[in-house]
Amino acid sequence: MSQLDKKSQAWSALFSQPMSELVKRYTASVDFDKRLWRADIQGSLAHADMLAAQGIISLQDVFSIQEGLAQITKEIEQGTFEWKLDLEDVHLNIEARLTQLVGDAGKRLHTGRSRNDQVATDVRLWLRDEIDLILALLVELQKSLLDVAERHTDVILPGFTHLQVAQPVSFGHHMMAYVEMFTRDEERLTDVRKRVNRLPLGAAALAGTSYPLDRDHVRQALNMEGLCQNSIDAVSDRDFAIEFCAAAAVAMLHISRLSEELVLWMNQNFGFIDLPDRFCTGSSIMPQKKNPDVPELARGKAGRVVGHLMGLITIIKGQPLAYNKDNQEDKEPLFDTVDTLKDTLRIFAELVTGIEVKPEAMEKATLKGYATATDLADYLVKKGLPFRDAHETVAHAVKAAISHQVDLSELPLNVLQQFNPAIEKDVYDVLSLRGSLNTRNILGGTAPSQVRAQIARHRARLS
Amino acid sequence: MSQLDKKSQAWSALFSQPMSELVKRYTASVDFDKRLWRADIQGSLAHADMLAAQGIISLQDVFSIQEGLAQITKEIEQGTFEWKLDLEDVHLNIEARLTQLVGDAGKRLHTGRSRNDQVATDVRLWLRDEIDLILALLVELQKSLLDVAERHTDVILPGFTHLQVAQPVSFGHHMMAYVEMFTRDEERLTDVRKRVNRLPLGAAALAGTSYPLDRDHVRQALNMEGLCQNSIDAVSDRDFAIEFCAAAAVAMLHISRLSEELVLWMNQNFGFIDLPDRFCTGSSIMPQKKNPDVPELARGKAGRVVGHLMGLITIIKGQPLAYNKDNQEDKEPLFDTVDTLKDTLRIFAELVTGIEVKPEAMEKATLKGYATATDLADYLVKKGLPFRDAHETVAHAVKAAISHQVDLSELPLNVLQQFNPAIEKDVYDVLSLRGSLNTRNILGGTAPSQVRAQIARHRARLS
Amino acid sequence: MSQLDKKSQAWSALFSQPMSELVKRYTASVDFDKRLWRADIQGSLAHADMLAAQGIISLQDVFSIQEGLAQITKEIEQGTFEWKLDLEDVHLNIEARLTQLVGDAGKRLHTGRSRNDQVATDVRLWLRDEIDLILALLVELQKSLLDVAERHTDVILPGFTHLQVAQPVSFGHHMMAYVEMFTRDEERLTDVRKRVNRLPLGAAALAGTSYPLDRDHVRQALNMEGLCQNSIDAVSDRDFAIEFCAAAAVAMLHISRLSEELVLWMNQNFGFIDLPDRFCTGSSIMPQKKNPDVPELARGKAGRVVGHLMGLITIIKGQPLAYNKDNQEDKEPLFDTVDTLKDTLRIFAELVTGIEVKPEAMEKATLKGYATATDLADYLVKKGLPFRDAHETVAHAVKAAISHQVDLSELPLNVLQQFNPAIEKDVYDVLSLRGSLNTRNILGGTAPSQVRAQIARHRARLS
Amino acid sequence: MSQLDKKSQAWSALFSQPMSELVKRYTASVDFDKRLWRADIQGSLAHADMLAAQGIISLQDVFSIQEGLAQITKEIEQGTFEWKLDLEDVHLNIEARLTQLVGDAGKRLHTGRSRNDQVATDVRLWLRDEIDLILALLVELQKSLLDVAERHTDVILPGFTHLQVAQPVSFGHHMMAYVEMFTRDEERLTDVRKRVNRLPLGAAALAGTSYPLDRDHVRQALNMEGLCQNSIDAVSDRDFAIEFCAAAAVAMLHISRLSEELVLWMNQNFGFIDLPDRFCTGSSIMPQKKNPDVPELARGKAGRVVGHLMGLITIIKGQPLAYNKDNQEDKEPLFDTVDTLKDTLRIFAELVTGIEVKPEAMEKATLKGYATATDLADYLVKKGLPFRDAHETVAHAVKAAISHQVDLSELPLNVLQQFNPAIEKDVYDVLSLRGSLNTRNILGGTAPSQVRAQIARHRARLS
Repeated sequence: MSQLDKKSQAWSALFSQPMSELVKRYTASVDFDKRLWRADIQGSLAHADMLAAQGIISLQDVFSIQEGLAQITKEIEQGTFEWKLDLEDVHLNIEARLTQLVGDAGKRLHTGRSRNDQVATDVRLWLRDEIDLILALLVELQKSLLDVAERHTDVILPGFTHLQVAQPVSFGHHMMAYVEMFTRDEERLTDVRKRVNRLPLGAAALAGTSYPLDRDHVRQALNMEGLCQNSIDAVSDRDFAIEFCAAAAVAMLHISRLSEELVLWMNQNFGFIDLPDRFCTGSSIMPQKKNPDVPELARGKAGRVVGHLMGLITIIKGQPLAYNKDNQEDKEPLFDTVDTLKDTLRIFAELVTGIEVKPEAMEKATLKGYATATDLADYLVKKGLPFRDAHETVAHAVKAAISHQVDLSELPLNVLQQFNPAIEKDVYDVLSLRGSLNTRNILGGTAPSQVRAQIARHRARLS
Repeated sequence: MSQLDKKSQAWSALFSQPMSELVKRYTASVDFDKRLWRADIQGSLAHADMLAAQGIISLQDVFSIQEGLAQITKEIEQGTFEWKLDLEDVHLNIEARLTQLVGDAGKRLHTGRSRNDQVATDVRLWLRDEIDLILALLVELQKSLLDVAERHTDVILPGFTHLQVAQPVSFGHHMMAYVEMFTRDEERLTDVRKRVNRLPLGAAALAGTSYPLDRDHVRQALNMEGLCQNSIDAVSDRDFAIEFCAAAAVAMLHISRLSEELVLWMNQNFGFIDLPDRFCTGSSIMPQKKNPDVPELARGKAGRVVGHLMGLITIIKGQPLAYNKDNQEDKEPLFDTVDTLKDTLRIFAELVTGIEVKPEAMEKATLKGYATATDLADYLVKKGLPFRDAHETVAHAVKAAISHQVDLSELPLNVLQQFNPAIEKDVYDVLSLRGSLNTRNILGGTAPSQVRAQIARHRARLS
Repeated sequence: MSQLDKKSQAWSALFSQPMSELVKRYTASVDFDKRLWRADIQGSLAHADMLAAQGIISLQDVFSIQEGLAQITKEIEQGTFEWKLDLEDVHLNIEARLTQLVGDAGKRLHTGRSRNDQVATDVRLWLRDEIDLILALLVELQKSLLDVAERHTDVILPGFTHLQVAQPVSFGHHMMAYVEMFTRDEERLTDVRKRVNRLPLGAAALAGTSYPLDRDHVRQALNMEGLCQNSIDAVSDRDFAIEFCAAAAVAMLHISRLSEELVLWMNQNFGFIDLPDRFCTGSSIMPQKKNPDVPELARGKAGRVVGHLMGLITIIKGQPLAYNKDNQEDKEPLFDTVDTLKDTLRIFAELVTGIEVKPEAMEKATLKGYATATDLADYLVKKGLPFRDAHETVAHAVKAAISHQVDLSELPLNVLQQFNPAIEKDVYDVLSLRGSLNTRNILGGTAPSQVRAQIARHRARLS
Repeated sequence: MSQLDKKSQAWSALFSQPMSELVKRYTASVDFDKRLWRADIQGSLAHADMLAAQGIISLQDVFSIQEGLAQITKEIEQGTFEWKLDLEDVHLNIEARLTQLVGDAGKRLHTGRSRNDQVATDVRLWLRDEIDLILALLVELQKSLLDVAERHTDVILPGFTHLQVAQPVSFGHHMMAYVEMFTRDEERLTDVRKRVNRLPLGAAALAGTSYPLDRDHVRQALNMEGLCQNSIDAVSDRDFAIEFCAAAAVAMLHISRLSEELVLWMNQNFGFIDLPDRFCTGSSIMPQKKNPDVPELARGKAGRVVGHLMGLITIIKGQPLAYNKDNQEDKEPLFDTVDTLKDTLRIFAELVTGIEVKPEAMEKATLKGYATATDLADYLVKKGLPFRDAHETVAHAVKAAISHQVDLSELPLNVLQQFNPAIEKDVYDVLSLRGSLNTRNILGGTAPSQVRAQIARHRARLS
C-alpha cells in the first residue's frame, strides 16, 4: 500500500498522528490548484519520457504512465475525476490516481523530482500559456481602439490637462494614447514571459538530484526557453509571479484611466459618448437610470489586482531560502489576477467597439475653454515676440474675452490688435479649432494626418 | 409581469437591448454576495415591519412578506433555492422569489428603499456578527496563550533583540507579549464595531426618501447603535470595511510574528519547541521531514489580508460621491479577510495549546550570549559607577570572557576584579540566569512573579 | 572618557573596528529623528525625576540633568545645537551633550532605561501631540464645510450615482456628507490616541529592569493613559504607528474624493464651482489655463500616505520579537504621514471656504437627467401601484420624454396619463426639482430642513 | 518684465490674486525636483540646438542659451545658485535665471515645449542614468557573492525547506542562488531601461506643437532609443516609474531574503557566520551586544520601497488623461527608491565580502536533521523499489534513528537491513554528507563541480 493511500491516517511512518481536519482544510490547496492539472500532466509526461530516455525507468513504465495520464485527462475533462482534500494538492491527487490505475509505474514517476520543483514547473507552464492568451486579448483590444480611432480621426475633443480645457485634440488621437499604453503592456508581458518560461524541474527538493536527469530534454519537450541554473533558487523563486502581477497591475491601471474617462464622458454634463444598453444596467429605484457599470466595475477591479500584487510581495518579503509553505499563498492572487485581467480585456475589446461618439457635444465643449490660446501665443512668436512675452500677452486677451463672455475667435480684430499691433486678419485661421488641430502636424501630434499615420503603423505591427 | 422577470430581456422599458452574456457574468455578484442572504432577509423583515407601522403598506402585506421570507429562508438553508445569475445579486434574487411567492406584497417591499442603502445595511449587519465571532476567537486564542504562559512561567528563554541573545526572559513572559497584542486587536475591533453597527437604511438611492419612514424603528429592530446621518454618505461610505481590514491586517501581522518565532524555534539549531504531528506535514521526497506548515502558511496569509486591505483602499481612492459600481469590488476582499482571519485564529487557538516546550534547550541557548552582562553593569552602578562607565567596563569583561570562551559567570573573582575592584563575591548571584530573571521585578518585567500577576489580570478580564 | 565620545572609534571596548563611514550613513537616524528632541527631553526629565524620587540617583543629579536639558533645549531652539552623525540618533546626541555639560549626572540618566523603550516612548509622546493638532485641524475643516453647507442649503445639485444624474440634492447636504466622513476620522483618531498614549518606559531593553522604577510616576508626569504591561511587547509594538497611518490613509481617501469632485466641478462642462486664484496655477504654455492644483495634488498625496501605510506593514510582517533594527524604518513614513495630513487638512480648511458656488449651473445640470423620475414612481405608489410596477411605468414615460427631448415635467398631462390614468394635475408638484428636494424630509435626507438640522447638530458638537 | 518675475504677484495677467503662501509651499516641488537640474539643462541644450537647426530660433540665440546654461551649471555645482520657492520647480528656476542672464534668448527657449513634456523628459533622462549606476552596483554585488561562493564551494550548509534541515548543500551553491536573483534583477532593469529611454519632448502640453520640431534630432542628441509616438500618452505616461519601482521592489525583496538569512546565521544558535565589527553596532544598555544592523535595516528598507511602489500605483489609478498635478507626487517615491536601492546595493557589495564563514558550525548543524534520508531512498530506488515505497521505508528508518538519538549513518547495517534486506555496506557512502553532496551532480545541482561551473559561467558573463 502506498504512502499516498494513508494520508488520512498519517503523513508517513514518521508521523504518529493524522492531520487534524481543521489543519487539513487550512493547508490543502487542491480546491484552487487543481486548475493546474493540464500543466501537471504535461510536465509529468515530459519527465517520464526523459526518465526512460536516461534509462532510469523502463519504456514499459512510460507506456503505463502515458496510458494512465491519458485516462486521468479524460476523467478530468469529463468531470468524473474525484478530487480529494485528503490528498492536499493537484500533484498528489493525480499521482495517487495514476498509481491506482497503473500500479508501480505510477510510484516511479516521482523519481528525481519533488513537489517543490514540480509545482514551480506547473505554475510556470500554466502562466506562460495564460500570458499568450492575454497577449492575444491585448491585440484584440488594440484593434478595437484602432477601429474607433480611425472612424473618429477628424472628431474634435477638448484635450484636458488638470481636467481643464487645454487644446483641441482629435478623438482618434486620444484613443491612440490607449493603444500606446496597451502596446507597452504587450512589451512588458513579453519581457515577463521570457523569465516565466524557464524550467525548474531537476532542482528536486532544493539541491538537485542524484539521478542522471537530462534537464534539457525536458526543457525542449515543454518548449521552454531556459533552465533554472541554481536548484535552491529554482524552488524559492517567485519573481515571475510578482513580475507578472506588476505588469497586470499596470495594464489594469490603463483600464482604470480609460474607465474613468468613459464614465466622465457618459455624464450628462459631458454627453460625449453613449454606451450600448447591453453594457449598462438600470437602478432598482430610479427608473430613468442607465449606468456605465462595466467601466466602473473595471476601475474597481484595478484595485483588486493591485491588492494581489501587494499580497504577493508581502508573502515573499523576508523569507529565508529555500521553499517555505508561505509560497502556497502565491497561487490564489496569481490565478485571480489572470482571470480578472482576461475578463476585463475581453469585455473592453467589445465595449470599445460599441462606443457611440457624439462629435457635436465634443466640439461644443472644446469651444468653452479658450482652447486656441496657445495658438495665438505661437502666432505672436512667429511675429517675433519671445514665447514668454507672447504667453503674457495672450493671458491679457483671454481675460478680456472672459469678461465679454466670448471666445478669442469672437474678439474683433481691432480689439485683438490692442494687445499686440502685429496681429493681422490671418489670426482667425489659427484661432479656429480645426485650424489649431491641423497645425500640430508633428510626429506624435494630434493633426489628423499624423493620427492616420500612427493608425497605419499600429495596423501593420498587429497584422 | 414584474420588471424583475424581464432582466434576461432588458433592464427596464428604457433599455432596448438585453445585457450581453459576457457583461452579465462580469457584473453579477450573486456568486459571492449570496452569503449575505440572512442579513438581507433580516433587514427586509425590519423594513417591512416598519413600513406597516408607518401605514405605508398594509399589515396583510407584512404577513405575506414574513411568510414568503420564512419560506425563502427554508429554501436557502435546505439548498433548494435557485440562485440566478440573471438576477445579478442576492437582493434581486430574494425579491424576485418573494414576489413569485406572495405577489404584489413582494413588489411593495422595496418601497422607500434602494439597493444602495440595502447592500450597505446587509454588509454592516453581516460584518457586525462576524466581528463578534472574531472577538470570541481572539478570546480563545488568548486563553490558549495564557495556559501555555502559566505552564512555563519559570522556563528561561533567551530574550533576543536583533535576534542576538540579549537578556534571559521567562518563556511565559514571552507568550504574554502576544496576549497583549491580541488584547489590542480586541480593542481595535471593538472600536471598529461601533462604526460598523450603524444603519444606512432610509438613505434610499442617495437622497433619502419621500416616504415617512421611521428609521429609528428599524435601527432598534436590527439592534444597531446609530443611524447614518447623511444619506449621500450612507450609500458611499466604505470606511467600515477598510477599517475592519486594517484591524484584521494588524491581527494577522501579530500572527505572522508568532509564526516566524514558531518556525524558528522548530528549526533544529534552536530546538526550543516541537509541534504536534497533526499540525505538520512531511515531504514528497525527503522521508525525514516534519514541516511546521500551519505557522508558515499563516505567515503567508498575512500577506493575503494585507493585499485585500490595499485592494480596498485603491478601490475607494478618488471616487466621486455617491454610490459607484466600483464598490461592488469591496465584497470579495472583505469576505476573504473575514474567512482568513477566523480560520487562522481558530487554528492558532488549537496550535498554541499543542506547543511542546523544551526548557533545557532554551536555557542552554540563553547561556550562549552573555545574557547577564547588563546585570553586571547594573551591579557596578549600584556600587557607584555612572551607568555609561559601567557599560564600558562590562564590555571589557565580555571581551575577556569571549577570548577565554567562557561565560561571565565562569570568570574567577580576581579576574572580574581586574575590571573593577569593587566587584565582590555576591556578583555571582546576579550573573546567574535565574538571578537575573528574578531581579526584573517591575510592573511589566519578566520576573516570574510579575508574569503570574499579568496572567491573573488577563484571566480576570477574560472571565 | 565616556563610551559616547568614542563612537567614531568603536562602539565599545568589545568592537575592534569603528563603523565604516558608509554604514554610519546608512544606519544613522539623527537626520530625521532629531524632530523627536522635545519628546526625548520631556521623557528624560520625567525619568530623572522618578529616579531621584526612588532614591536611585541623587537630587543633585536631577538638578544637574534639568539644568543641562534646559541648556540643550535652548541650543536646539536657537539652532546652535550640533547634531552629529557619529552619535547615530537623537537620543545619543542629547545624552552626549548632556554629559559634556553636566558630567557624571548625565551618565546616570540612562539608568534603568534602554534606547529601545526610550525611542518607543519618544515616538508615542510626539505622535500623541501631533494627533491633537490633527484633531484640531479636522475640526477647522469641518467648520469650513459647515459654513459652505449653511450658505448653500437651498442650492440644488444633481446627485449622482454611477456619475449619472440620479436625484436632486441640496449642495449643502452634499457638503455635509464630508462632514460625516471627517467626523468619523476624528472618532478613529481618538480611538487610536488611546493606544498611542501608553508608556513603554520601564521595559528597558526588553525584559524590564532590576532598578525599583516607579513607572506610574513617569506615566503621570507625561500625562499618559496607561502602562505597557509587557516589557517585550513594549519595545516590539508598532501597532500604534500602523493604526495611525491607517486612520490617516482613510482621512486622505476622503480628501481624495472631495478633490475628485472639486476637479470635476471646475471642469468647463460642469462649471459648478470656481476656486479662488490663490489656490490655482496657470500653464507654462497655455495662457488661458487656470488649474485646480491643490485638489489634484491632494488626490495624489492620498497615494503617498497609502504608500507609507503599506511600507510600515511590510516592515513589521514576520519580525520575531523583540526589537529589531528594521523598526528604525517606521519613522520616516510616520513623520511624512503626519506632515502630509496636517498640511492637507490645513489647506483644505482654507480652500473649502473659498469655493465659489454657481447655483444656476448646478440647477441646470439637474434638469438634464430626469432626476425626478423616482418621485413620479413614488407618486404612483401612493396611488396604489406596487413599487416595482410603478418603476416600470416610469421607465416607459422617461423613454417617451427622451424621444421628445423634454423633461418629464414638460410632458403634457394627457401624455402622462397614457402611462397611468391615475396621474392627476398634482403630479407636477413632485416633478419639480425643489418639490422633489423638499419631500425627502427624513432624518439624513436632503430636504433643506433636514440639512439645517444636521448643521445645527454638528455645530453644537464642535462648539 | 517676464511673466516669470511676477510669480510672486500672480501667475499671469489672467490671475487676480497671487498664490497664497500656504499653497505655494504645498504645491512647490523645487525642494526635491532640483535634483533633476542636470537632465533639465541637458534637455534644454538639445532642444535649443534643434530649434536653431530648424530655423525656429537664431544661432545667436543658441549661443546665448548655451552660455547661460553653462553659467547656471557652474552656479549649481558651486552651490551659489539661488533656488526660489516662488518659481515652483526646477524648470522655472533655471529658465528664470537664464532669462536674467541672457535676456530674450532665454524667453525663446520654451518655444514648442511645455513643462509637461519637459518634466517627463527630465525624469526619463535622470532615471536612465540612475539605472545604469544601479546595474553597475548589481554587478559589484554579484562579484562579491561570486568571491564568497568560490571560497566556500566545499563548505557544507544544511539546506532548509520550511526552515527544517532538508539536504546538505554547498554554501557556495547557496550564495549562487542570490547571484541568480540579482542576475534577474539586472535583466528586469535592462528591460525597464528600454521603456524609460524614450523621448516625450515634442508632445508639448499634450497635443504636439505647431513648430516644425525635429524630434529625432533631439532624440539622437540625448542618446535615447525611441520617440513617444502619441503626444497625449507622452505627457500622461508614468508606466516607466511604476515599472522601475516594481523592479526595485523585487531587488529589495531579494535583499530582504539574504538579510533574513544573515540575521539568522548570526544568531548564537546558528553561529554559521560572523559579520565584521564595522557593519555592526552595540547596545546602549547591554554591553555584550553586537547587532547585525545593516541586514536588519535593509530588510526594513524593503518595506520602504514596497511602500513607494504602492504609493505610485495609487496615484495613477483612475486618472483621466492627460497630465494632472497628481503626477507631481511621482517624484519623491521614485527618487527615494533610487537612493535606497543604490545605498543598499553598495553596502551589500561590501558586506558580503566581509562575511566570515564558520564551516564547522554549518556542518555540525547539517548532521542534526537526517539530511541524507533522501539519499537512502534514492539508494533503495536504485535497488529496484518504486520511489514511493522507498520513501516510506526510509520514514521507518528515520523514526528508529530518532528513537535511538543517532544519525542514519550511525545505524548498524543489520538494523538498516531490517527495513529493507537489499541494503548493503555501500549504503554508508550515500549516507555521508559529502557523499550526498557530490551525487547531486546535475546542471543546477549542489555538487561542488556544478557550483564551480556556475561560478565560471557568471564570471564570464560579468567580465
